Amino acid sequence: MLFSTLASFLNLRLVGEDLELDSMNELALASPSQLTFAVHKKYSSQLSSSKAKAFLIPGDLVDFLPQNASYIVCDDVSISMALSTKLFAPKPISFELPHAIIGEGSFIDEMAKLENGAIIGANVTVMAGAYIGSNVRIKDNTIIYPNVTIYRDCVIGADCFIHSGTVIGADGFGFSHTKAGEHIKIYQNGNVIIEDEVEIGANCAIDRAVFNSTIIKKGTKLDNFIHIAHNCEIGEYCIFVAQTGIGGSTKLGRNCVVSGQSAFSDHLDIAAFSTFTARSGVTKSIKESGGVYSGYPLMDHREWRRLQSKISQLNS
Amino acid sequence: MLFSTLASFLNLRLVGEDLELDSMNELALASPSQLTFAVHKKYSSQLSSSKAKAFLIPGDLVDFLPQNASYIVCDDVSISMALSTKLFAPKPISFELPHAIIGEGSFIDEMAKLENGAIIGANVTVMAGAYIGSNVRIKDNTIIYPNVTIYRDCVIGADCFIHSGTVIGADGFGFSHTKAGEHIKIYQNGNVIIEDEVEIGANCAIDRAVFNSTIIKKGTKLDNFIHIAHNCEIGEYCIFVAQTGIGGSTKLGRNCVVSGQSAFSDHLDIAAFSTFTARSGVTKSIKESGGVYSGYPLMDHREWRRLQSKISQLNS
Amino acid sequence: MLFSTLASFLNLRLVGEDLELDSMNELALASPSQLTFAVHKKYSSQLSSSKAKAFLIPGDLVDFLPQNASYIVCDDVSISMALSTKLFAPKPISFELPHAIIGEGSFIDEMAKLENGAIIGANVTVMAGAYIGSNVRIKDNTIIYPNVTIYRDCVIGADCFIHSGTVIGADGFGFSHTKAGEHIKIYQNGNVIIEDEVEIGANCAIDRAVFNSTIIKKGTKLDNFIHIAHNCEIGEYCIFVAQTGIGGSTKLGRNCVVSGQSAFSDHLDIAAFSTFTARSGVTKSIKESGGVYSGYPLMDHREWRRLQSKISQLNS
Repeated sequence: MLFSTLASFLNLRLVGEDLELDSMNELALASPSQLTFAVHKKYSSQLSSSKAKAFLIPGDLVDFLPQNASYIVCDDVSISMALSTKLFAPKPISFELPHAIIGEGSFIDEMAKLENGAIIGANVTVMAGAYIGSNVRIKDNTIIYPNVTIYRDCVIGADCFIHSGTVIGADGFGFSHTKAGEHIKIYQNGNVIIEDEVEIGANCAIDRAVFNSTIIKKGTKLDNFIHIAHNCEIGEYCIFVAQTGIGGSTKLGRNCVVSGQSAFSDHLDIAAFSTFTARSGVTKSIKESGGVYSGYPLMDHREWRRLQSKISQLNS
Repeated sequence: MLFSTLASFLNLRLVGEDLELDSMNELALASPSQLTFAVHKKYSSQLSSSKAKAFLIPGDLVDFLPQNASYIVCDDVSISMALSTKLFAPKPISFELPHAIIGEGSFIDEMAKLENGAIIGANVTVMAGAYIGSNVRIKDNTIIYPNVTIYRDCVIGADCFIHSGTVIGADGFGFSHTKAGEHIKIYQNGNVIIEDEVEIGANCAIDRAVFNSTIIKKGTKLDNFIHIAHNCEIGEYCIFVAQTGIGGSTKLGRNCVVSGQSAFSDHLDIAAFSTFTARSGVTKSIKESGGVYSGYPLMDHREWRRLQSKISQLNS
Repeated sequence: MLFSTLASFLNLRLVGEDLELDSMNELALASPSQLTFAVHKKYSSQLSSSKAKAFLIPGDLVDFLPQNASYIVCDDVSISMALSTKLFAPKPISFELPHAIIGEGSFIDEMAKLENGAIIGANVTVMAGAYIGSNVRIKDNTIIYPNVTIYRDCVIGADCFIHSGTVIGADGFGFSHTKAGEHIKIYQNGNVIIEDEVEIGANCAIDRAVFNSTIIKKGTKLDNFIHIAHNCEIGEYCIFVAQTGIGGSTKLGRNCVVSGQSAFSDHLDIAAFSTFTARSGVTKSIKESGGVYSGYPLMDHREWRRLQSKISQLNS
């Protein structure tokens, strides 16, 4: 899309050369063909060193733009950004793509739906009621149980088990908020990548990224009712017990073990080999690997046990 | 149905004129063509002023009936009421209704199911595996993602996004309990109304009302795994973060923000612009708008932070 | 399968007579035609009295085997056991079974999937998008709402309501862990048995047993988002409120009432007529029936209320 078309849509003025843009991305990752944005002065240095050429910015950041940048000054960058995501959003279905390709030895139930552009590896099983969206890729030997939904553009590795009711690639939960209290949808234009040997239980939900990918790495196992928000990155060989939720953009290192009904805030960075007992509520990043944690607010597991004993003494 | 037919079904005696009844409702809302009931003396004044003409009551409430009422005296009104709901329950599917009507520009995947009596607006997308029940209405521009289920008689507004795995209109969780410890189903004969510009994440469940409607008002946004019980009323522009549950008949005012894994008891009334941090457990109504709350038992957020600090000092 | 075939697959040596084995089971329950295993010296007396004839054991348990046993000595019995479950796992679909049998007066939507070998009773309703796996049995009068998934070999009683999005019989969450930190899938070769008059809300997940059955007994009612792990046994007339989870192999007696967002650890034994208030976290068995409990760690409900009052005084 032309940057000038976007400017017209936003009813704002484009400054600089018009550009052909293929997508959007966050400031740190945007390439020259991507629209990006800065909402706040704290991003001024990132802005200066950005490889992008097309920007949505507030007026007080104009001086920090890289040379030859094209830009739109916005009253409320967050709202303009949200509105722009709509223009770059793919349709729910791409009918114009070529027919799905199905590898040797694979079984696709006639009551499963394969949208165009899907690529299915060898010896894959897709059972009745499963939905495989446009451009989805599923690698060898994976089993997709009945009534699984995989939204467009997602990638599922080899030797995975995806159990019924699980939804991979639904929109992440992202909105910009107007002063009147309305919520403007930030279209979620990224995808989900599930690596090899991942097992996902029944009725899980792994949201697609706003830009780029939500990633679940090799060998990780999810029980039922696991919520993974947009842009999370879950390391290799992690274990998540039922009814646990992970907030947006949070990253866990390899071999973390998370017991049932736990929750993580967004934008955390959790060291590998961390263990969390049931109902842990994690609100801060963890730098040192190998710890065992409990409680909300979270603390060292032994400390939590001691504290519970102290609390129970209040009643004596 | 004739009131006398119901009396025969319950094996109880009808006193007064026989009446044609079209449905059931709670005492405060019942019209002259609806069956209603009072379980307890505390409803005696509501009973006297009721517009209904057909009642299930215990023996000690006969004197409080409005003039010319027809009634059945029940040993256990709650059980008789539950049994009666079955007689008024519509079948899961109404085959006899006219074919679904589909508005201009709408796309209904051939692997989606539209029951008879459904009315689909313009530019609606219904993807594969979605189920649209008898008499369901979906307004313009809404997207129903794959494997969504919308039970009969529910209404979905315009410009909504309903993500995969979400179930709208399943039975609310209501039973009457016998002295022997069995649970008699109260059929849930109401519906769900979702207003315009609502987004509902993956694998949510919004239960239908026992009578009347469960309502989610304009512009509200639900993350994944949100549980809304029967007869809730959620105000405009609310936000619910993942894995939160709302008990039956609870009402929230507009622009409430509820963070993840929170829970509300039933029959609460929550003031507009209330904010709840993660894992709030709300058991009492809130009258004053604009507060920020935390914890279970719930308290003011700043108080909760102070309390957590005091608790952690127990360990020193 | 021949025990010698299994030994070749594991690349280990079979000692004793070769045997035809039809399945696997835990030590206490295994029959002469089943493979069983002992991971640890603490099972030595169970081992001696086992009716099984085929064993996976560590070297230090050889002397405790019953007479004439055939066995494989394993470096890591847990890993060998997990690998063996794969050989006994049925395929996701048994195409070779006879066509499904459907009882009189039953309605199976043409957009529901019935695998071969399914047996449907009289007056059953199976709505669009439902999946009924190979060998599944559904008894009279039960309603299966749209987009329900019932995995192979499960049994659903008479007069049940299974609401949309619910998944019955997905794999329990079981893995053996290598020293390198990988997780080896324990195939879940059991099933789920739902007895008569059970109602299961929307988007629940009841996992199949690893061996034998996960059981939900007569008249029990589940709200939405209930997680029942593998090998649980839920007594008659229990009530589970939304978003509650039960860990593997836990047993509850009849008429337990569990409020919302509660959780139970695995391998517990809970006495009948126990009541748990919202967010109970149950980590120990309960022997005495009729108690009311709250909190995590769990305690008597009155004690919990007193404790909350004491805790709140810390802030004064």
